[in-house]
Amino acid sequence: MRVMIDGVTRSIRSVWREGSLVKMIDQRVLPHRVIVLELKTHSETADAIRDMAVRGAGGIGVSAAYGVAQAAIEAKGRPLKEFTTYLDNAAETIRMTRPTAVNLFHSIERCLKSGSKGSVSRRVESICNEADAIALDDISASEKIGFNGAALIKNGSRILTHCNAGALAYLDLGTALSPLRVAYKEGKSFFVYVDETRPRSQGAKLTAWELQQENIPYALIADNAAGYYMMRGEVDLVIVGADRIAANGDTANKIGTYEKAVIARENGVPFYVAAPGITFDLSCRDGFGIEIEVRSPDEMNYVWGKDDEGMVRRVRITAEETNVLNPSFDVTPAKYVTGFITEKGLICPPFKKNIREAFGRATLPDRIA
Amino acid sequence: MRVMIDGVTRSIRSVWREGSLVKMIDQRVLPHRVIVLELKTHSETADAIRDMAVRGAGGIGVSAAYGVAQAAIEAKGRPLKEFTTYLDNAAETIRMTRPTAVNLFHSIERCLKSGSKGSVSRRVESICNEADAIALDDISASEKIGFNGAALIKNGSRILTHCNAGALAYLDLGTALSPLRVAYKEGKSFFVYVDETRPRSQGAKLTAWELQQENIPYALIADNAAGYYMMRGEVDLVIVGADRIAANGDTANKIGTYEKAVIARENGVPFYVAAPGITFDLSCRDGFGIEIEVRSPDEMNYVWGKDDEGMVRRVRITAEETNVLNPSFDVTPAKYVTGFITEKGLICPPFKKNIREAFGRATLPDRIA
Repeated sequence: MRVMIDGVTRSIRSVWREGSLVKMIDQRVLPHRVIVLELKTHSETADAIRDMAVRGAGGIGVSAAYGVAQAAIEAKGRPLKEFTTYLDNAAETIRMTRPTAVNLFHSIERCLKSGSKGSVSRRVESICNEADAIALDDISASEKIGFNGAALIKNGSRILTHCNAGALAYLDLGTALSPLRVAYKEGKSFFVYVDETRPRSQGAKLTAWELQQENIPYALIADNAAGYYMMRGEVDLVIVGADRIAANGDTANKIGTYEKAVIARENGVPFYVAAPGITFDLSCRDGFGIEIEVRSPDEMNYVWGKDDEGMVRRVRITAEETNVLNPSFDVTPAKYVTGFITEKGLICPPFKKNIREAFGRATLPDRIA
Repeated sequence: MRVMIDGVTRSIRSVWREGSLVKMIDQRVLPHRVIVLELKTHSETADAIRDMAVRGAGGIGVSAAYGVAQAAIEAKGRPLKEFTTYLDNAAETIRMTRPTAVNLFHSIERCLKSGSKGSVSRRVESICNEADAIALDDISASEKIGFNGAALIKNGSRILTHCNAGALAYLDLGTALSPLRVAYKEGKSFFVYVDETRPRSQGAKLTAWELQQENIPYALIADNAAGYYMMRGEVDLVIVGADRIAANGDTANKIGTYEKAVIARENGVPFYVAAPGITFDLSCRDGFGIEIEVRSPDEMNYVWGKDDEGMVRRVRITAEETNVLNPSFDVTPAKYVTGFITEKGLICPPFKKNIREAFGRATLPDRIA
């Protein structure tokens, strides 16, 4: 991804490793500040995951893998038994950061398994290689999603997206934003409507910022305005990411996705979901099996912003005693989805058959984060 | 409306007149502070309208009428010619405050016309009486809307509303909120989902506050969450207000209303629009004739809130250079509307015929504010 830091445009990932150092863009202060964190130990990396300096399935998974690699490097001078104990404790520390993030568990297990044989120095090397491989797998899936999705974008296309399924969530290109990055590099000219995505406003804070950095033309809109533009025939396609996709194509994603999908179908606008294979949960028959997290009222009651003196601070935007309900995800029934943009190509209906053929039997835990 | 001020619960209107004094709840600082403004002159009242201390069609119209009454009182000792000049200048000052608010023009003309005959003291009396009559007409329409709409609310009903069509917009009961107030007084128990209504968040700041004051059970939700609850079968009806209704029933209202209407129909949830006769514009054949105002990006970029020290301040929630599109209203095609709740009863399809029968030929200017 392109990022301007201190006036210089660089091409970086949202999370990367330099030897025993893990570096990441601190997503908590975006878009007001671009700060690259330098995490020296696995504990610091675990803290960064827990405190949501990094977020998104890919970002969390790769950070966890890097954390295990840091732990291995920290213990490389120790005898095998001590090394193993140290590594297991570190893995447990990292596991505890975000108890419901599936990529985190997958990444940790992959690293531990790769470092389960041979001498300590051999194990350290294997774990570091595996962590780097996990990052490359993520980037590779995003790239393929980008190429497969870019075919849907024409010169002049007007695309709506919801939430942030960008490089900040998936290292370098993202999922929903990857087709946009690829199409832009191919020289296509198009326009993106960015839903604000209340209550956490990932569209306003992250997606708008990413597109601005890439010079891709966009406008931030209120979530309420998406229907207005679709009804006027000013949106040609919708691309969103996904948190979990059931075997029949029912899609859990950020709250509000369902509304956009219904309005899209009502207006004949194609609605695409961009996601890598790991997001498909074939153990989940349909959307009814997906439990939806209801999060803190604070997400509705407070916002972070920059005051007139340039200080980033929290303000309460509701009355003190306001009653709030804050479901974080919704499930879009498969009938509203035109197709899934994946690393294995575009998956069209019938979804049940075609998803199974593409991704077999991957499983995810019961809850999404 | 019930309002707690300094620990004491009072029954007041959002705007009222005490002789030459106009009083109103300052809507700019709600819900963080409840401040009653005391406006001593017609100039102060004009400032309050311009600065949006008062908003909503009814609130603006009545404030304008009271402003003309203040001007008449201010000039009551002058000879007729001077009195007339003073009054005309004052009317022009008030007209200039919100150039697109229809109720404002209607109210000013009604007052001027009523004060166009007889001695100065006779004119002053007529104008003051007319201003009070305008307020009573508003309250009377709201009351009838309340009784007609309350019939739709059953024990256990779960009702969704969008934006603020409450007492803050229509003096004492509101339009969309009037049926809720009446049903609550009738002893019905029900629950209200309040859409936040970005970008100006009238749901969070005004509707949630009004319902809290009345002790009506409610929860504030993100605009994105309305579809989630409708899809789960947890919403029994939707009631919204309207800014303008065309002869065929197409309804212009706060941005996002269209999305809620489509999702409601998709889920078999009745969708009602509560509005007085003045909102029906029979000179407008359909929704295509209604121009939609695109407002300042600042509404998306900045929010007002209370910081941790209790100070109400403005913060910027987006990056400095963010591109924003901010349409303020949308048009809901009549086919999504179940019925109109008016002071003349519930208007059901066929709308064109039934609206004409109820309201004949009222007209509004070309733009909505």
